[in-house]
Amino acid sequence: MTTPHRPFPGPSTGLATINLGLPGFAEAVNAQGGNALHVQWRPPASGDPQLQEILDRLHRPGPDLGERQRRIEAANREAIQRLVNAQAVLVDIRPAREVVPGLDEETILHAGPPVSWERMCGPMQGAVAGALVYEGRASSFDEACALAASGKVRFAPCHHHRSVGPMAGVISPLMWVFVLHNPAHGNRAFCTLNEGLGKVLRFGAYDAEVIERLRWMERFLAPELAKAVRASGGINIKAIIAQALQMGDELHNRNVAGTSLFIRAIFPHLLASDLTKEGVHQVLAFISGNNHFFLNLSMPAGKLAADTIFGLKDCTLMCAMARNGVELGIRVAGLGPRWFTGPAGLPQGLYFGGYGAADANRDLGDSTICETAGFGGFAMACAPAIVQFTGGSASQAPQVTREMYEIAYARHRDYQIPAFDFAGTPLGVDIRKVVERGSTPYINTGIAHRQPGIGQVGAGILRAPLSCFEEALRAFDELE
Amino acid sequence: MTTPHRPFPGPSTGLATINLGLPGFAEAVNAQGGNALHVQWRPPASGDPQLQEILDRLHRPGPDLGERQRRIEAANREAIQRLVNAQAVLVDIRPAREVVPGLDEETILHAGPPVSWERMCGPMQGAVAGALVYEGRASSFDEACALAASGKVRFAPCHHHRSVGPMAGVISPLMWVFVLHNPAHGNRAFCTLNEGLGKVLRFGAYDAEVIERLRWMERFLAPELAKAVRASGGINIKAIIAQALQMGDELHNRNVAGTSLFIRAIFPHLLASDLTKEGVHQVLAFISGNNHFFLNLSMPAGKLAADTIFGLKDCTLMCAMARNGVELGIRVAGLGPRWFTGPAGLPQGLYFGGYGAADANRDLGDSTICETAGFGGFAMACAPAIVQFTGGSASQAPQVTREMYEIAYARHRDYQIPAFDFAGTPLGVDIRKVVERGSTPYINTGIAHRQPGIGQVGAGILRAPLSCFEEALRAFDELE
Repeated sequence: MTTPHRPFPGPSTGLATINLGLPGFAEAVNAQGGNALHVQWRPPASGDPQLQEILDRLHRPGPDLGERQRRIEAANREAIQRLVNAQAVLVDIRPAREVVPGLDEETILHAGPPVSWERMCGPMQGAVAGALVYEGRASSFDEACALAASGKVRFAPCHHHRSVGPMAGVISPLMWVFVLHNPAHGNRAFCTLNEGLGKVLRFGAYDAEVIERLRWMERFLAPELAKAVRASGGINIKAIIAQALQMGDELHNRNVAGTSLFIRAIFPHLLASDLTKEGVHQVLAFISGNNHFFLNLSMPAGKLAADTIFGLKDCTLMCAMARNGVELGIRVAGLGPRWFTGPAGLPQGLYFGGYGAADANRDLGDSTICETAGFGGFAMACAPAIVQFTGGSASQAPQVTREMYEIAYARHRDYQIPAFDFAGTPLGVDIRKVVERGSTPYINTGIAHRQPGIGQVGAGILRAPLSCFEEALRAFDELE
Repeated sequence: MTTPHRPFPGPSTGLATINLGLPGFAEAVNAQGGNALHVQWRPPASGDPQLQEILDRLHRPGPDLGERQRRIEAANREAIQRLVNAQAVLVDIRPAREVVPGLDEETILHAGPPVSWERMCGPMQGAVAGALVYEGRASSFDEACALAASGKVRFAPCHHHRSVGPMAGVISPLMWVFVLHNPAHGNRAFCTLNEGLGKVLRFGAYDAEVIERLRWMERFLAPELAKAVRASGGINIKAIIAQALQMGDELHNRNVAGTSLFIRAIFPHLLASDLTKEGVHQVLAFISGNNHFFLNLSMPAGKLAADTIFGLKDCTLMCAMARNGVELGIRVAGLGPRWFTGPAGLPQGLYFGGYGAADANRDLGDSTICETAGFGGFAMACAPAIVQFTGGSASQAPQVTREMYEIAYARHRDYQIPAFDFAGTPLGVDIRKVVERGSTPYINTGIAHRQPGIGQVGAGILRAPLSCFEEALRAFDELE
């Protein structure tokens, strides 16, 4: 978004000033009654000579590429092919302990980069404690906190277990997860079923109502839906994402079309199952009662694509971006499992009645896998109506997408933007472009209350911190 | 849409020409190697002195309005209130013979302004013949045509019977119709259930498959859906339209979101009815198998609104626009039941495989009630993805809506355009503005084969003819 300023005066109206860089200078001139036009500009790599040298080596424009840069371009092109060709088929729903690799009974998975119990934010502690009660390992919030602090719980990021989780992102062994398969690469990804909005575990709530809902999902919703999914032979989630992008969703904070299309895909198989009509009604009513239900399907679809480039040598594209409520971390394809972290931001957004910015926890969740895979905030131009949920002006939505083209390596083939004459969404965040331009990914997000036990208080938009991209670029340069 | 032209040259590149009016002059200059910029402009009222005098009387801008013009402005403001406040609740589905006023056993309703059997276009004759076979009044196409020509069938426009019908728009007594109610005004409107795409009655097909489908709809689909509708206590169609406009529909040629949202509104009541699971499946699968199903609900919602201003004294707003495949007719609120007609146009569009412009019938159907009520082509800015069905460029969609603001008296309060920061859609076509600017309504439409028996061959976009608006304005001027 550009900085608001006065209309630039014509030549006959006296002295005019053009200000580059710090907006404060233009503001000072204007405060004195002058006329200054502020132009957003920053020097390449924020003027850091070391980063500029690295960019000279890794990102020199023009035809005479060095040998290493040629390898980078080849790797990035290969990465885009894998991202674009990734399919996403919902093939099953299973208990996490049966299918999520390495998820033993001692383990609780959480969103974002690694974080210890002591450093976890309020809503994540709330969700972990709720999960321990749900698992039967504790009988109260206090007992659960004591257990979590005792060292007898192993914490690990969802991302380390082929999984993603929205907000706190807690996955515990008894929870059932969507199983998505990418036949183009042979990989799988997992995500829990979305519980709804407001007072729910992923936003840090943990009371009896929350636990009771999780048990109902485990004992009824998930197994019955699983039968329908298996009977369907697989639901094409990628096709639903592509169509929902033509219907005003960006699939991160707006999933009303995705949820509607999923209902149309699943109802025939529910009605053909051995469920009673009342049972079918309960399943469909739960899904239809929550326009964010599809988020937990769009996220693992993004994870399926992003995981295809994890560890790809010489590739400078981001393959994960996730927040634990304290830090935002990114992973870069060519840099393997290492996380590069910066402070998690505070979203600007709209708050539910009775709440405000002072209640907001820092940014939280694995849902930025959407932006990583070319939708979410990157597809804002598809979803101008989202501002009713996140704030801002609808007419700015196209500008968000345009700005993301500047840091993306390519455009998606299958995820298209009608308002841009079906141009593909920005795909593959290139850390070289991010550092060169000092421009980081836009993120659409939900906002959790910073205290455990309360839940969602709003939704908004923010940018990722620049520092983790700069650190990643330095590490990339040191690889050889 | 503006006429394509070369970039206008700067002052240093030699002589340049600006051409107003006929594009041929600019084309001639450019053909000679010159540089002419063509600007779309036409004199007010197409330069017709009589129409200009009428506009002086009825549409003089500025604060010193004459007494008649004051009455017009007051009537038009009242009309906009009625249009905006109109609700649309689906309250029942009933056999047409039971609920459509004046529809006796001798009568067949059709789309558009009045037309005799002899003058009907091919697809309308096909649909009428099919309906006579379906009603049991004939046993073959030839027998049906003979009966239709015998004078023993009374033909009347749907619009004369509080009804609307897409394409041929045929409503016969045995067909079941949606019953919509507007509690704000107390009126009702009726429309058949959508049969699907391709080889269907409304596009002029009439073979055994078509008749069999109509019988299944009469004997199973409609009565079962009716039970669910009655049990629901009423489905709010206006709310679905408003939401679907935020989801990429314009509700005339694109109804994928509307159909999806209707499925979500109706499934609980189907599942609570006495239908078997297999029965529920058949009903939902039929609806979900046709993304145009909701058209036959958006149309009577538009009719409910438009009928509230029918006969409103001194009102210059169009209250009906419909085509019978030969003529397009409009009605103006202050001019009562009289139709003003001009030639029905030939859409520019996309054709199904194997068909082309030579196969197209002239524009057909009551579905322009959508544009009359502030959606359809007027809401193109909501639905850029529609060009995949109708042709054209998605980035031109906002321009269509902007142009319709110029001939609309106001903007809708409840039907909003996200991409325009939730500005209301253009509402209430003012015949004074149409004539003054020489700019007529955009129409999104389906394309029927011009021969009976074939069905839909494409979809496209076109403009209404100017002559019927000019004739209406003259008649309005002569009122007193």
